[in-house]
Amino acid sequence: MNRSIIRNILGLVLLIEGTLLILPAIVSLFYSEREGLIYLGVGAASIALGILLSLKKPQSHVFYLKEGCVATSLSWILLSIVGAIPFVLTGEIPSYTDALFETISGFTTTGASILNDVEALSHASLFWRSFTHWIGGMGVLVFLLAIMPLGGGSQMNLMRAESPGPSVGKLVPTARHTARILYIIYFGMTVIEIILLLLFKMPLFDSLCTAFGTAGTGGFGIKNTSIGGYSPSLQWIVTIFMILFGVNFNCFYFLIYREWKKAFSLEEVKYYFIIIGIAILILFGELYTTVGNASESIRHASFQVASVITTTGFSTADFDLWTQASKTILVLLMFVGACAGSTGGGIKVSRIVILIKTLFKEMNSYIHPKSVKKIKVDGKPVDHDVVRAINVYFITFMIIFSTSVLLISFEGHDLVTNFTGVIACLNNIGPGLELVGPTKNFALFSPVSKFILMFDMLAGRLELFPLLILFHPAMWSGMFKTKRKH
Amino acid sequence: MNRSIIRNILGLVLLIEGTLLILPAIVSLFYSEREGLIYLGVGAASIALGILLSLKKPQSHVFYLKEGCVATSLSWILLSIVGAIPFVLTGEIPSYTDALFETISGFTTTGASILNDVEALSHASLFWRSFTHWIGGMGVLVFLLAIMPLGGGSQMNLMRAESPGPSVGKLVPTARHTARILYIIYFGMTVIEIILLLLFKMPLFDSLCTAFGTAGTGGFGIKNTSIGGYSPSLQWIVTIFMILFGVNFNCFYFLIYREWKKAFSLEEVKYYFIIIGIAILILFGELYTTVGNASESIRHASFQVASVITTTGFSTADFDLWTQASKTILVLLMFVGACAGSTGGGIKVSRIVILIKTLFKEMNSYIHPKSVKKIKVDGKPVDHDVVRAINVYFITFMIIFSTSVLLISFEGHDLVTNFTGVIACLNNIGPGLELVGPTKNFALFSPVSKFILMFDMLAGRLELFPLLILFHPAMWSGMFKTKRKH
Repeated sequence: MNRSIIRNILGLVLLIEGTLLILPAIVSLFYSEREGLIYLGVGAASIALGILLSLKKPQSHVFYLKEGCVATSLSWILLSIVGAIPFVLTGEIPSYTDALFETISGFTTTGASILNDVEALSHASLFWRSFTHWIGGMGVLVFLLAIMPLGGGSQMNLMRAESPGPSVGKLVPTARHTARILYIIYFGMTVIEIILLLLFKMPLFDSLCTAFGTAGTGGFGIKNTSIGGYSPSLQWIVTIFMILFGVNFNCFYFLIYREWKKAFSLEEVKYYFIIIGIAILILFGELYTTVGNASESIRHASFQVASVITTTGFSTADFDLWTQASKTILVLLMFVGACAGSTGGGIKVSRIVILIKTLFKEMNSYIHPKSVKKIKVDGKPVDHDVVRAINVYFITFMIIFSTSVLLISFEGHDLVTNFTGVIACLNNIGPGLELVGPTKNFALFSPVSKFILMFDMLAGRLELFPLLILFHPAMWSGMFKTKRKH
Repeated sequence: MNRSIIRNILGLVLLIEGTLLILPAIVSLFYSEREGLIYLGVGAASIALGILLSLKKPQSHVFYLKEGCVATSLSWILLSIVGAIPFVLTGEIPSYTDALFETISGFTTTGASILNDVEALSHASLFWRSFTHWIGGMGVLVFLLAIMPLGGGSQMNLMRAESPGPSVGKLVPTARHTARILYIIYFGMTVIEIILLLLFKMPLFDSLCTAFGTAGTGGFGIKNTSIGGYSPSLQWIVTIFMILFGVNFNCFYFLIYREWKKAFSLEEVKYYFIIIGIAILILFGELYTTVGNASESIRHASFQVASVITTTGFSTADFDLWTQASKTILVLLMFVGACAGSTGGGIKVSRIVILIKTLFKEMNSYIHPKSVKKIKVDGKPVDHDVVRAINVYFITFMIIFSTSVLLISFEGHDLVTNFTGVIACLNNIGPGLELVGPTKNFALFSPVSKFILMFDMLAGRLELFPLLILFHPAMWSGMFKTKRKH
């Protein structure tokens, strides 16, 4: 285990976080809030610690997938541990467990909150809360890659551990350039959303926070009614941008470079839009027959489908009160998730597509036992290893999911609360149904359950294995041995 | 497609069913019930049709896996179509859809009923209902193999399609002998259970029906209170036999031939007992803290764990009223199911064990990327193809499960009802929670939903693919083409 490079990366992560913590401090200046001082203090401490950790250059740049996973998991845990401190120091979230839950929920772009009244928070904290979504959406290590030169083959291993989806789309030969392009697209689209929100008369502060929450597919609102209190046009803008941020960023890359054919032939993106279309249609039908108002029904249906499939978690209506069929569709969308290579979470459309293709391939093998057709995506055969990895991912996902539901069931809440609470955290969505429905929050859980759900949020964001291997015994023995092994 | 051999097999199946339909007729003689005549009539018609279909010998004995699957699926569908007729003709289940649901539920050993009052049925119908469990438990085609000589390589392909579990354990070199040994064990254990029930003062008729339901891990009771009305000792006997019939029959085979070491080293059986032990312990704890009666708590906990993990579905208590943790454990056990090579349904313990081992293997591959360890079961490496097949099975299972939940959600029942109703059918358990809980039944569903659940019961019993490929377009074009293709 190359511990020195991990220490170095953790130092850089603290440096970045410290710098970013200055932003809420600046925000508080505009509102003459004293909370800004706390953000400034924590930011400065974080920078100091970051410098200390990253001063000593790593002895070696040898960096395997194992180190990539450990560096990523530890970075995310450290980010959250530090990021939670201001909430406690300002007294806005007195319990550190709760503050950590809220911060992990922020960085992992989950958006599950323990707050009953978000409007009681200071502007600095509201800003920081939403900004964690934006940082977590594209990934802090991807950011690190974009701005810092790291040695050797290390970069791809870092990015592989942090990026959502079955495989990292290498847009350009080097990880560094890929990371930069991703951040440029991400930044650009966020700015466009902010401008549009401002044009349709959303206040600047609200526009910034809403755009951060949309871009990272996070879902923390700054109002107790989430997005429900804004005008229909603003709701539509958010709907469209949620859907856009759930698209595989490769698609935008191709669009920017005018490779239209490539952009429009991405199978995952095609199925993503088909699923969204069908779900909106059915939900519209269900809502229209109960509510009777066509424009309202289509707006709520579109918003909620977009919010859930992209794992954002904003809401304009309490979908826990909708028909059973509507709720079932939303729960299924919670499992599906957005496209790989987007900021959204979930199992990912591409994985679902390949899983379904696996079923059909198997059926074919019964009928034509001798044929050995490979599964194809975008017209190209999918590598056997990728298919295997997707199978393993799905199995692991279901094991973590069932174990978590079992563990939190001992608290005595109903099955639907536990079931949707876990999926809402594991797939980084935010709200579930029943006691964790869109108008409720996660405050009802005990600290033990909260830690299980925090684990789920991190596991979901880091695509399971980078976090899981932290708990592997071999990892720990390796961690404390001076001798380098791999 | 070798249609002539399929026609031949279907004829033999009808012959067997016709003969078996005479049994309830005999039962009705003892109770001077007129329903016996109807069973006799349907039996005679079935025999006549069976002779007609099987008279013409097949032109060829070439028999591939495809034919095995089609023959099996069609046999089970035909069995159910004919087996449902007496219920309608006696007027006891006036709707044919309901009668078909009840019969499929019987043959697939599900035990999900549409009857509000089973005690209103005639003895003949109660007997037939329970006897379908016994026939379906070990499989009618396995029976066919045991008594009839079929040509060529056909036998293994038939057995593979009907036997529960990831792979057929070839106990002895020929399928015919394996089938015979299985039936002898099955018959012997059923007789022992009947004798024990009689010894502990259960009436003969009740003992027969209860033993059929236990042996086939079916779950149809002949009382409205299922097994709840019988004495604690009788409940314990049923508990023990449910657990025994959920054990991989290979284990019994080794025991009979005094291969103790082999019998006691079967990993699947070991984990099966460990899961049962842990589940009983937790449920006992939960029940004891709420009820306070130790002997009652341990009895209900053991009975319900045994009933659910073996997918039998008998009940002695309304577990829908138990604590959330207890219900969650029961729901998870519903997914797990019994051992492969038993009469129980579900995903099967061996599959779950291999799925969990897949997770650990993946974690290891992150830490030691160059190691290529194979997954081992019973000390032997598991063939890559078996692991792949299990992955595909699990994926297909989840796809069928989610699709079914979605489809029946349009009826407007709550999520827990739909979720547990589908799993109770797909894994051949019987009762679920809420509206399909142990004191309720499946009468509330519309005919459309009932057909979806019938599909699930058959798919679950036939391990998904044999039934699924019936719906493959290539199958239908093959079915109607005169030219033989494979």
